[in-house]
Amino acid sequence: MAHINDNFQKLPGSYLFTEIGRRVNAYSAAHPEKSIIRLGIGDVTLPLPKSVIEAMHKAVDEMAVKETFRGYGPEQGYAFLREAIADNDYKARGANIEPDEIFVSDGAKSDCSNIGDIFGIDNKVAVCDPVYPVYVDSNAMAGRAGDYVAELGRWSNLIYMPCTSDNGFVPELPAAKNEKGERIAPDMIYLCYPNNPMGMGITREELKKWVDYAIENESVILYDAAYEAYITEDLPHTIYEVAGAEKCAIEFRSFSKNAGFTGTRCGFAVVPKALKVRNGAGELVSLNGLWSRRQSTKMNGVPYIVQRGAEAVYSEEGKKETKALVDYYLENAGIIREGLVKAGYTVYGGVNAPYVWLKVPEGMTSWEFFDMLLDKAGVVGTPGSGFGPCGEGYFRLTGFGSRENTVKAIERIKALNV
Amino acid sequence: MAHINDNFQKLPGSYLFTEIGRRVNAYSAAHPEKSIIRLGIGDVTLPLPKSVIEAMHKAVDEMAVKETFRGYGPEQGYAFLREAIADNDYKARGANIEPDEIFVSDGAKSDCSNIGDIFGIDNKVAVCDPVYPVYVDSNAMAGRAGDYVAELGRWSNLIYMPCTSDNGFVPELPAAKNEKGERIAPDMIYLCYPNNPMGMGITREELKKWVDYAIENESVILYDAAYEAYITEDLPHTIYEVAGAEKCAIEFRSFSKNAGFTGTRCGFAVVPKALKVRNGAGELVSLNGLWSRRQSTKMNGVPYIVQRGAEAVYSEEGKKETKALVDYYLENAGIIREGLVKAGYTVYGGVNAPYVWLKVPEGMTSWEFFDMLLDKAGVVGTPGSGFGPCGEGYFRLTGFGSRENTVKAIERIKALNV
Repeated sequence: MAHINDNFQKLPGSYLFTEIGRRVNAYSAAHPEKSIIRLGIGDVTLPLPKSVIEAMHKAVDEMAVKETFRGYGPEQGYAFLREAIADNDYKARGANIEPDEIFVSDGAKSDCSNIGDIFGIDNKVAVCDPVYPVYVDSNAMAGRAGDYVAELGRWSNLIYMPCTSDNGFVPELPAAKNEKGERIAPDMIYLCYPNNPMGMGITREELKKWVDYAIENESVILYDAAYEAYITEDLPHTIYEVAGAEKCAIEFRSFSKNAGFTGTRCGFAVVPKALKVRNGAGELVSLNGLWSRRQSTKMNGVPYIVQRGAEAVYSEEGKKETKALVDYYLENAGIIREGLVKAGYTVYGGVNAPYVWLKVPEGMTSWEFFDMLLDKAGVVGTPGSGFGPCGEGYFRLTGFGSRENTVKAIERIKALNV
Repeated sequence: MAHINDNFQKLPGSYLFTEIGRRVNAYSAAHPEKSIIRLGIGDVTLPLPKSVIEAMHKAVDEMAVKETFRGYGPEQGYAFLREAIADNDYKARGANIEPDEIFVSDGAKSDCSNIGDIFGIDNKVAVCDPVYPVYVDSNAMAGRAGDYVAELGRWSNLIYMPCTSDNGFVPELPAAKNEKGERIAPDMIYLCYPNNPMGMGITREELKKWVDYAIENESVILYDAAYEAYITEDLPHTIYEVAGAEKCAIEFRSFSKNAGFTGTRCGFAVVPKALKVRNGAGELVSLNGLWSRRQSTKMNGVPYIVQRGAEAVYSEEGKKETKALVDYYLENAGIIREGLVKAGYTVYGGVNAPYVWLKVPEGMTSWEFFDMLLDKAGVVGTPGSGFGPCGEGYFRLTGFGSRENTVKAIERIKALNV
């Protein structure tokens, strides 16, 4: 008889943001008079750039006329968009990525969970702790995570790489060999920089250590660069700025956080042709071809209208407008960061990312701080422990709110005198 | 070390439509003076309905203003669209499907391949022969198909259900038990009606046999109804018109073929709450919850703009405009069908579907007919054998071309005097 994928039932309770929503709704229902400011979820609030709007109107008009109507597009994305990406995001940064190494998708969330399809089930996966839950949950569904151990808040078969203030939120390289000299290096390594949830960046030198490690140990780095537009310091915007990365890394990018596409849905994955991985017979196979086959079999591309909108992000005007959006959210993050410092908190992030990561007051858990902040200040954030055990004692606030709400939230937090 | 999913390397050569493209391009290059009419791929050619265009312009404008901007939407789709679907596609047909049983997606191709995520790898899969290749290839990638046996053109672990003129293109029910009385019924059964590639429908009585079989044998029917808008006779538009289907069937639908969304990307899956399947412990689990978890973990919903476009398909004007599109393609199919009959061909389909399925002349293979038709008439169709061994000796033409090209193609075929 038909039977389910049992891995689904191993997933613990509800998704982090569902639980936050539940608590906020319950609080609102009990205190309808309280004004609540949401700085929890990483969703943008400003409208799309003008040039994106114009491009999408134009594309809608094209779809209304037989001569310019577009049916099925290339599953990998239109060349006009892949070329704009290759030129602006890669070649302009000295990274030699070609359009046929770029795969347009409906977003980084889809890509970084679907990518597992082209890897064998028994690849060993390493994730940071704390971490964006999608890397973990998608691998758990596929059967790579083993069993969830509730007491530890961890999966039995994942390698966790703690990111704490002690290591500047860049983890140690995982052990490559055990005492007997056998390889125990992870096969798939998820890295996200600037990182979510901590909002911290990585230097070229640090990133190079990971690339060298991956090449030496035949590991693949799954590099999530969704927040690269927020980099203000001298940090790599793409992993392909590091020599050798094209042989060991897949990169995920998104138009969500730079151009406000969270509800418009467009992103892309870069799978370099030089990236080769072993098959069961020990032969090297190019992942570019496998991902192309996966995408052309299991999806039909991204709406033409949306791809034209994404293309406009790379126009002269589009670049200015996108920068203005990012600057606005970064300024919010700065307000949060400085306000919290003045209020006596230890604070990380917020300089190269829209996220501020704060240490909760001594003696409180992340969820206790969440409940206190909601009750006393009417501010919603995200408990660090929701991202993994090493997030316990931390809390995330985002710069994606309105200026007015951000300022108000910080005033309220300061007034708490915690 | 990292290693690939070896199932990918079991996939035979290139995708059917890639091979067709290759042959057409080679022919064009060798004969640049020849005019070629493409009636091969199932892609629409008429522009989007006016009401869809208007709705999308309005939605683009909303995205330009802070007050009406939309960020992350519900992963399952906006309620406005799910309610329109439930009312128009289900309740109006006497099928009691609720909005929370509908999951909006970027298309039926994604859904019918991603659905495998919630089923165990060792479910036994049954597919029709001939069949839409995506059902087969996505299960092969997941490891459910076994090995490809090139001599047979079949996978070792799939159950093939021949659809031929002898059974009216509705297969026999697969054997449920072997001689020892052990269950050998398939666990997952893909059915598509009106079917692709044959263009034939199924009656309520015939479909009820499948529903009864699935319930008795604890199988799940994966029902692809992407062509339901083309039904002109008294046939079921949804499997949920059949009593009991809500306990054994998932349905896939699309806006591609009715409203011309092949390049706009929107569809939906229906996963009824009453549909329960066993877990490893033998307990019944609702698939609705699993699919919800899968979708909310691995994607972020469909563009707001596109969902507003899809909603407009259900407006008064939208319904009229959509019907006009479908009527146009059906009329093309009728022209193909009648023209081929006059030319002496044995022809199926084209009445409840945009596809016409013809028997190629005695002594020719499907690919030989393809090459002959391309060379002598400049008409591109799809060889039936590309859809499975039982498609050998058949050929598919589609009604999706322009009227002018369709008429011209049929004149050319008649003139061949094959």
